[in-house]
Amino acid sequence: MTDDTHADRRERTAARLRAVDADGLVCFPSRNLQYLTGFEEEPSERHFLLAVPTAGDGGGHDSGDGAARSDGTAPALLVPDLYETQVREETSVADVRTWADGDDPVAAARDLLADRGLREGRLLVDDTMWATFTQDLRAAAPDATWGLASEALADLRVRKDDAELTALREAAAAADATVRDLRELGADAVGMTERDLAAWIADRLAAHGGTGVSFETVVGSGPNGAKPHHGHGDREIRAGEPVVLDFGTRVGGYPSDQTRTLAFDGDPPAEYERVHEAVREAQAAAVDAVAPGVAAASVDRAAREVIESVGYGDAFVHRTGHGVGLDVHEEPYIVAGNDRELEPGMVFSVEPGVYLDGRFGCRIEDLVVVTADGCERLNDTDRGWR
Amino acid sequence: MTDDTHADRRERTAARLRAVDADGLVCFPSRNLQYLTGFEEEPSERHFLLAVPTAGDGGGHDSGDGAARSDGTAPALLVPDLYETQVREETSVADVRTWADGDDPVAAARDLLADRGLREGRLLVDDTMWATFTQDLRAAAPDATWGLASEALADLRVRKDDAELTALREAAAAADATVRDLRELGADAVGMTERDLAAWIADRLAAHGGTGVSFETVVGSGPNGAKPHHGHGDREIRAGEPVVLDFGTRVGGYPSDQTRTLAFDGDPPAEYERVHEAVREAQAAAVDAVAPGVAAASVDRAAREVIESVGYGDAFVHRTGHGVGLDVHEEPYIVAGNDRELEPGMVFSVEPGVYLDGRFGCRIEDLVVVTADGCERLNDTDRGWR
Repeated sequence: MTDDTHADRRERTAARLRAVDADGLVCFPSRNLQYLTGFEEEPSERHFLLAVPTAGDGGGHDSGDGAARSDGTAPALLVPDLYETQVREETSVADVRTWADGDDPVAAARDLLADRGLREGRLLVDDTMWATFTQDLRAAAPDATWGLASEALADLRVRKDDAELTALREAAAAADATVRDLRELGADAVGMTERDLAAWIADRLAAHGGTGVSFETVVGSGPNGAKPHHGHGDREIRAGEPVVLDFGTRVGGYPSDQTRTLAFDGDPPAEYERVHEAVREAQAAAVDAVAPGVAAASVDRAAREVIESVGYGDAFVHRTGHGVGLDVHEEPYIVAGNDRELEPGMVFSVEPGVYLDGRFGCRIEDLVVVTADGCERLNDTDRGWR
Repeated sequence: MTDDTHADRRERTAARLRAVDADGLVCFPSRNLQYLTGFEEEPSERHFLLAVPTAGDGGGHDSGDGAARSDGTAPALLVPDLYETQVREETSVADVRTWADGDDPVAAARDLLADRGLREGRLLVDDTMWATFTQDLRAAAPDATWGLASEALADLRVRKDDAELTALREAAAAADATVRDLRELGADAVGMTERDLAAWIADRLAAHGGTGVSFETVVGSGPNGAKPHHGHGDREIRAGEPVVLDFGTRVGGYPSDQTRTLAFDGDPPAEYERVHEAVREAQAAAVDAVAPGVAAASVDRAAREVIESVGYGDAFVHRTGHGVGLDVHEEPYIVAGNDRELEPGMVFSVEPGVYLDGRFGCRIEDLVVVTADGCERLNDTDRGWR
């Protein structure tokens, strides 16, 4: 992504704020901040804020501080001074203010809002902004009303551009290559702990060009696979048992997220084979259902119908998928009740699963991007358990 | 930590809520949740809430729903149903409610609050709770007023018990062993990229018994070291240049966090040697200043005076330290203006640094625990640059 990309996104955001009747947006270290500036950082206790006023006339609210407003409506950053060099090097935001340890960051935040005419009106904050910062912002702008950044940004972020799709494809390729490595590992996985195998997967993802893991790697062996959000523990992998393997990495800032369920060195229980086949068919049916104009809920239904038809409906305990972009979970959610129509450029997971308490789990997941007439799978390795 | 530990912490929290005039506490997946239940999970978009009402009479507020209140004042969890098995296995919270994808989690949260008499009064939320959840809670309890969990929990969490100190010592030992490995690596580090060395450090931390990294590993070579929060990039490490190495891992859920600045294969610039010596003296002076009853700000002052005396005061751009516990940054903050008196059992970093823009940085950091008459260093490897 170039500086121009980020400046362009900030301009489109400023315009979009007016469309959703908001006067400004305040981000902290978040995926929204990364989307708008290219700067990637974990949140911390130090105040780090980006203010983006709405474009044009400020949305019709008087700021009560006309002189300050005339200073401009350009986005501005307030950062701890130990980030200043980095922020000036890595972002194209022209107005960067700093505060030092020992200063009062709440006063600095109040000044930033005042300068941009954002001490009242309707302000949006990052959906993930910590309560400690939202409470400070409420104190700094006591007359404002508050909404969430996703009101303005979700619609911009949900359709991926070519550069984003390239990064997502590369991240998916690193995950696919790691799945092939796992199949080659085969019987050697037996006797490894889930934790060991998770570390092995992290190494392979890095070897295939990924940076880090995009979420806690799931190695759910045997009964642990029946807990959809089990990460990895000290249990040793046994021959012939199903192991849910759900992992991803990042390339160019964008994540992968795919799942295969494999049995190493031997055949799984006969019931497992039936479950696996149903999950595979459900996943194929859901992917086939993806096309522009189709409701997200219809894709969920397509997967669920297959699994219900073989009697495992109650064991498919989660939605069929979630959008993937800078956030590993973002819109669109592929879930019952979501009538949102799919559009070209949306990227999401298709990941039906069946979980039999105390016995095993099975999940098969690929990312897809909606195209003009259907979808393209970003992951395309074998979906069998062998 | 045993279930008893967590149940005891919940009871002390309920009592403490009354002391800070709060009616209840609401956590989401956070270090507070981990402290109170043992359950460790990253936040996600799904509603996952722990409600802890105040002990006894509910703090004197009428709930307007006496029948519901008589259901009890025990803590209760509301979790996505795909976590149910895990939560019941891994926590001792008796009242666990679930919601499924496609249900309305906000209605479920409202019911939870109503059942516990928490739809009004003064409620505390995790300092790190995402805005999307605080906004939902405000909608579910429109007559409540809001504070931060740290008001009640910081004082409980700030003094570490023996089990916590054991974990912190083990995590520190894994980091110290990795520092020794780095000195042995020596000239072999030259030519590695910062990224490669960060991956090497992660491997060594794991080999020494750590789980993951407790924050993004800093490998700040040459001029990158002058950016205190530089992580690691593609720059290759050169012979004789100072490299800031700041990293940690977790053992038993608790993190390490220490820094050494090393020059691999050759001597650093003469000015660097003077800077290093000043930082080392500043760190020693600050550690010497630590004792019960001493103000946190005095420890910061002790470090700063040494660095100011040799003319680098403006280049010491951050506070001297931060508390370390389940959160890598927590109270007490060792910063100008913090009059809080140190107490036995507090654990924090002592990490003065000097940063010369475009040239190099130097930081030396150890964790210390306050004892009855001074402090114990949790890290104790050589502090030289060689």
